[in-house]
Amino acid sequence: MKNISILGSTGSIGVNALDVITSNPSSFRVVALSAKENTFLLKKQIERFKPNIVAVIDSKHAQELENMIDPELTTEILFGSDGYREVATLKEADMVISAMVGSAGLIPTMEAIDAGKDIALANKETMVMAGDIITRKAQKKGVRILPVDSEHSAIFQCLSGHRHRDIRRIILTASGGPFLNLSWEELTKVKPAQALKHPNWNMGPKVTVDSASMMNKGLEVIEAKWFFSIDIDRIEVQIHPQSIIHSMVEYIDGAVIAQLGMPDMRIPIAYALSYPERLPCSDHLLDILKVGRLDFFSPDLEKFPNLKLAYEAGKAGGTMPSVLNAANEIAVESFLKELIRFTDMPKVIELVLSSHQMKTAPTIDEILDADLWARKSANTIVERMN
Amino acid sequence: MKNISILGSTGSIGVNALDVITSNPSSFRVVALSAKENTFLLKKQIERFKPNIVAVIDSKHAQELENMIDPELTTEILFGSDGYREVATLKEADMVISAMVGSAGLIPTMEAIDAGKDIALANKETMVMAGDIITRKAQKKGVRILPVDSEHSAIFQCLSGHRHRDIRRIILTASGGPFLNLSWEELTKVKPAQALKHPNWNMGPKVTVDSASMMNKGLEVIEAKWFFSIDIDRIEVQIHPQSIIHSMVEYIDGAVIAQLGMPDMRIPIAYALSYPERLPCSDHLLDILKVGRLDFFSPDLEKFPNLKLAYEAGKAGGTMPSVLNAANEIAVESFLKELIRFTDMPKVIELVLSSHQMKTAPTIDEILDADLWARKSANTIVERMN
Repeated sequence: MKNISILGSTGSIGVNALDVITSNPSSFRVVALSAKENTFLLKKQIERFKPNIVAVIDSKHAQELENMIDPELTTEILFGSDGYREVATLKEADMVISAMVGSAGLIPTMEAIDAGKDIALANKETMVMAGDIITRKAQKKGVRILPVDSEHSAIFQCLSGHRHRDIRRIILTASGGPFLNLSWEELTKVKPAQALKHPNWNMGPKVTVDSASMMNKGLEVIEAKWFFSIDIDRIEVQIHPQSIIHSMVEYIDGAVIAQLGMPDMRIPIAYALSYPERLPCSDHLLDILKVGRLDFFSPDLEKFPNLKLAYEAGKAGGTMPSVLNAANEIAVESFLKELIRFTDMPKVIELVLSSHQMKTAPTIDEILDADLWARKSANTIVERMN
Repeated sequence: MKNISILGSTGSIGVNALDVITSNPSSFRVVALSAKENTFLLKKQIERFKPNIVAVIDSKHAQELENMIDPELTTEILFGSDGYREVATLKEADMVISAMVGSAGLIPTMEAIDAGKDIALANKETMVMAGDIITRKAQKKGVRILPVDSEHSAIFQCLSGHRHRDIRRIILTASGGPFLNLSWEELTKVKPAQALKHPNWNMGPKVTVDSASMMNKGLEVIEAKWFFSIDIDRIEVQIHPQSIIHSMVEYIDGAVIAQLGMPDMRIPIAYALSYPERLPCSDHLLDILKVGRLDFFSPDLEKFPNLKLAYEAGKAGGTMPSVLNAANEIAVESFLKELIRFTDMPKVIELVLSSHQMKTAPTIDEILDADLWARKSANTIVERMN
């Protein structure tokens, strides 16, 4: 029996994780949940899983939740960064699922590592912003960080049983998103509603837009660099529209190991939660005969410059990936509010990156400062565009 | 430095193995070679690799070879089953590559295991005929049997680092061979020369005809059962015409691990020879972007009944797989001599299987008796067809 805390239980990863936990009641118990402000769903989750504690963004939402739930329940309701810290570090928790959206996930995840909790990491920003600090901290604390992203879970599985020094390169596959076949002209006109429809994966809005713009893949490249301690030049992105091969590792002898599966987040989530065990599951099996065909081609960096920007920021290191990530968060927000066009997003990010004074080997405070600076800078650029 | 003996050095596997050894002179030394009667090629191999001993099929070929080679060479030339035994058990050898064609490979391979040599196994018949005896003997002797077949090498790599009890099924891929898209009517008319042209792999005549008739895949299913101690019902065959995914393992959680690579026998041969190391190689790398597309569909058991026959024989066990294999060897021979049609091969095999009085848990002598009986029986059936 593993006791699980979830940072971000009302998002797509959180909901899928609770589904995995529900299907395996003898393996897992939920001890803590947290969300931003979706008190409606959180109430249901509290009544269903009876965690020791929950946390929301602020006192207003905590009060709202308090008024909603069954008074018989003993669940303690907390809020703000102190609340999230309690969820991340709860004594009873064996593992913390880090599934908050965006850079907000960084600090609670660090706190969980400091408290010696194993991490199931869905929050890309943790590795993108502070991969160096995080991986060293985890090693020092003897904490295991398991990937939840289907791509990184695939790579993790493709590396298992093989030697790190035999890796030639890592091949991250990308579906290419909903706009794979649009021209630049057409890309300039896409609306938020179109960007929010992913062909294969059912995810939250931020990640879905990032998939459409290829920034998601760019962040994954930086994440992979830290997860698997591999030089960014040895990580390649390939478009594979069916999302069946979730990623591959090529070894020095020409052998390539790939992990395949249905595009269902419950598979990598279950693997992260149960590792080194695998949990039997029969309702999302891959029938490759039904899929019939798998395609592969190169990404178009002209149409999707975000991927190129992410490689550059990842290669530069220091505070650059944080700036990339923060500028992208503002760009996505601005696109969803229809303040800028889809094709303006990489322009905003590029302008922010090019005016950043990078710090090498930054502290967490310097990383957070860079993040704040990049947000302001991106907002200014967006305003200027209007 | 590993000392290598090769049983069957002039065949396709033997030649490729020597190519791998030539490319890695600091890893391997050839101490013994053997062939049937290709003294011309064997002479070249002796002069190139200077083994301690070589063996050929009979005294006539030994004498012929003796007259051909440089008299300065100290290589001892032996012949017959005693000669093959010397090659299989040579004191200096660390590993024996078992690459003779057909059932003739069984006894020398057993002798090598008895002598405590690690085995790189290309001779399918060893596992098909005597998988039970061979695997138990290897375990008792602490001997490692490494697969050389690309499919079994793939499965071996897909199992590495994962737990045997988590396997749901093994998926053996098959190119489908040159006649994949022919009708039954067209299959009745194919000539040996057509069957000898494989679309992806460059192999010897027996294996190439077996690939065209799907018997090769049938034998591989039985081989996989013993190699990976898995029930035959959990081994599935899928047609994958590009031969890029060499096989896959599906785990209980829905994750599938696959091994991919160029269809080049040097990759699995090098892996078997160097395991657990991987040897760097850059001249046969997979460029999946160039391949572009991978297809998968079900095999047509009506058009290729050999696969069904192999499953039945493998499931029945005992002497049945030996009978299947021996009857098939005669059927292939008879087809190559144009005594029977391509579509007669499964008919011959089925008739032999159906009249066999099976022995369960047979001894090696009973296996060899069944093999002899099946050959006679198959020859009689072929004669009756003419």
